[in-house]
Amino acid sequence: MIDARKIEKLRKIVGKENVLESVEQMVAYSYDATNIWSHLPDVVVFPTKTEEISEILKFANENGIPVTPRGGGTNVSGGSIPIKGGIILCTTKMGRIIEISKTNLNATVEPGVVLQDFQEALAMEGLFFPPDPQSFAGCTMGGVIAENSGGPSCLKYGVAKQYVLGLEVVLADGRVMKLGGLTPKNRTGYELIMLFTGSEGTLGVISKITLRLLPAPRASKTIVAVFSDVAVAGETVTAIIASSVLPSKVEFLDSWTFEKLRGLLPDYVLDISQLVLLIQVDGLPQTVDAETQQILDICKQWAREVRVAADADEAEKYWQARGAHFSDIHSRAHTIVNEDVSVPRDKIADFIRLGRESAKRHDVPISFAGHVGDGNFHPAVLTDSRDKEHYQRALKCVDEIIDIALNLGGVLSGEHGIGLEKQRFLKKAMDPLAIETMKKIKDILDPNHILNPGKIWEESKE
Amino acid sequence: MIDARKIEKLRKIVGKENVLESVEQMVAYSYDATNIWSHLPDVVVFPTKTEEISEILKFANENGIPVTPRGGGTNVSGGSIPIKGGIILCTTKMGRIIEISKTNLNATVEPGVVLQDFQEALAMEGLFFPPDPQSFAGCTMGGVIAENSGGPSCLKYGVAKQYVLGLEVVLADGRVMKLGGLTPKNRTGYELIMLFTGSEGTLGVISKITLRLLPAPRASKTIVAVFSDVAVAGETVTAIIASSVLPSKVEFLDSWTFEKLRGLLPDYVLDISQLVLLIQVDGLPQTVDAETQQILDICKQWAREVRVAADADEAEKYWQARGAHFSDIHSRAHTIVNEDVSVPRDKIADFIRLGRESAKRHDVPISFAGHVGDGNFHPAVLTDSRDKEHYQRALKCVDEIIDIALNLGGVLSGEHGIGLEKQRFLKKAMDPLAIETMKKIKDILDPNHILNPGKIWEESKE
Repeated sequence: MIDARKIEKLRKIVGKENVLESVEQMVAYSYDATNIWSHLPDVVVFPTKTEEISEILKFANENGIPVTPRGGGTNVSGGSIPIKGGIILCTTKMGRIIEISKTNLNATVEPGVVLQDFQEALAMEGLFFPPDPQSFAGCTMGGVIAENSGGPSCLKYGVAKQYVLGLEVVLADGRVMKLGGLTPKNRTGYELIMLFTGSEGTLGVISKITLRLLPAPRASKTIVAVFSDVAVAGETVTAIIASSVLPSKVEFLDSWTFEKLRGLLPDYVLDISQLVLLIQVDGLPQTVDAETQQILDICKQWAREVRVAADADEAEKYWQARGAHFSDIHSRAHTIVNEDVSVPRDKIADFIRLGRESAKRHDVPISFAGHVGDGNFHPAVLTDSRDKEHYQRALKCVDEIIDIALNLGGVLSGEHGIGLEKQRFLKKAMDPLAIETMKKIKDILDPNHILNPGKIWEESKE
Repeated sequence: MIDARKIEKLRKIVGKENVLESVEQMVAYSYDATNIWSHLPDVVVFPTKTEEISEILKFANENGIPVTPRGGGTNVSGGSIPIKGGIILCTTKMGRIIEISKTNLNATVEPGVVLQDFQEALAMEGLFFPPDPQSFAGCTMGGVIAENSGGPSCLKYGVAKQYVLGLEVVLADGRVMKLGGLTPKNRTGYELIMLFTGSEGTLGVISKITLRLLPAPRASKTIVAVFSDVAVAGETVTAIIASSVLPSKVEFLDSWTFEKLRGLLPDYVLDISQLVLLIQVDGLPQTVDAETQQILDICKQWAREVRVAADADEAEKYWQARGAHFSDIHSRAHTIVNEDVSVPRDKIADFIRLGRESAKRHDVPISFAGHVGDGNFHPAVLTDSRDKEHYQRALKCVDEIIDIALNLGGVLSGEHGIGLEKQRFLKKAMDPLAIETMKKIKDILDPNHILNPGKIWEESKE
């Protein structure tokens, strides 16, 4: 617990209007979108500028107080849960878009800018920042970088790390470090920017971000293809990509989400099929037409039903169905254990088959939506954490699914990070020497382990 | 100096056929393409597998022997010069392409594979790895990663770091660390891969590389546009990119290279103009046609002369002229001081104007070719290191040009890295806290500083 004198000090740093401490308020900052763990912080502070972050961290470091950085709190691996109590450092009052440059194709923002607001501001200028995690309406740019966010568009455009040009980071001792610059190429020294990108708030607090942008695609089209066999769908994806077309999105929906597609596709198709591919191409109008035709030609050889959305409205309905998947699944069970393994593209069909067999063995419902174009799946096991026996079966199934993915040459996390959720798998998913190296880096940047303690690796010596 | 007993030990590790030690042989490994510094190694060893790299490093680490990793030796900032003597660890006998997967769009290679050989093997499969440094015919994949190589195609496709999925790295103490995997998305722990990418051989020796690939573009077209004013050329580049077309290459040639274009473009155009933009678009044939037309429409508003290469042969001639630039400049002077600063796109015209003024002030010839599309220039000052007075003036001009770039919000190196060449500028180009952090990382990964000693930062305590 932090005593009153320490909280008074925090009030002096950020102003009393920027400190929360009632229990009711602490509850709101005790969990994230993972919805499995929670822990009350002692206090929530809202810095409004870099200097305040610096003073907060200096004070916390000198007093050994845990600090959990938090933006929108939308992450799904436990990253922003203050599992050791202490301070929640919430960046949502640092929400300025500092600059958008159309000429330089870059933008500089504060960490508390909401991704959707940023995307809308860019769209006004004909610009584009591709990462599009499902939490876009609430997640903040600091989190997008600290979690190295992905999303459907990352198939064509890559993940957040591929867009970071410059960072200002406040280190655990309060010192402010400026990294990178404004240009798309920069070979000045080690890639320290990348150390903080995806570090889940454990190495520093990101206080300013410069991002590379792209010209916004002028046009897009959406294709829906329905398959009755997952292996065939997987081969179709491969055939599309091998034909030199890289769609902007190739998403996968299984029958759990078919209700959302009712009225959009003929019922007889949805009733007997096992999955839907939602494909988007974007670019110049002429490009989009050519690529759509090419994808159609390929899909027609393999799919039960193929349809191009007639207009943006129809396309939007399909994407809404995809977007609703996660909340849809959540509405059907008390607890969802939602993984995000990624497997090589040629193992997609094996992965889904083996995953379904595992769920059947453990007698738990499972859904397999995901970013099939890049092999990144979100297998979601539906369970109830209050029903110990069922929950244990669900966890065992998840354990098996992670083993299946790793055995197929896949990785533990494609997008969500390790946080609290995947700590217990880290040792089998990562070279022990790499874990040792990560810990050494943690030690040099945060020797007192005040930053987001209890995350990424299981505590033994920590 | 390494004594005979130590060399005997190295012979035991790699076999005597894989050890060179005569002075004549050492000379061949004493320099790189920078052509300014040189230093003889004591011995050159050619490991043929990871285990041998491991044993070499373990032995060198225990005996405090400097080890300079080297591939093709084509780098241009002094990175592979054994400035402290010791061992050259040359990876050219580890030249296997282990796997190319069209389905997974990835490939795994040993570090000694020559980039051009790799690109040709990929082309056979309809695949594509974009980085295309001018040294492609001789540089090796280990160097491409350790130097985080760029090239013209990086405008559209990004640099080497954006393609690394997995690395096997041998640490200074000989331990082998496996990082990343086979999938395009991976959020398992810190981005340690990125620490070794661009580390210039100072943190570990890369022994295996897994790369993300793209489907090869089906078609391409080349546009030549001649301008009489650099600001207008800069604005044209901006207008093209703002029109939602991202060309695969936008290169810049000044009058120094015009001789190579004789016969390809009308003489009267080249005589009075000041620069040429070479633009390439690629993709599906339909896309290429649409984008070419769009670029033509824009160029016609601004350029003195615009021409689309009629066929691949004509396009190849233009690109050969661009490719010959560097050797062309070299043929005109004993010493070339070739920088690679990068400036924000809206500062391109200012940068060239101020750079030319500086060269005039110091009375030295200068050429300004480069990757204008991303603001990365290779201003080359023509001088003669044997003529002390001229050489000093050339260096002063280079100093000024770097200051000009930094003052315009640019960065010290866009592609070539720091090596030996840019050490003296590092302190003004990088936050002291970032340099301190780099040194701490060096200390944890290579505590005895055996790996490529004397590079990146100036020696004070080292």
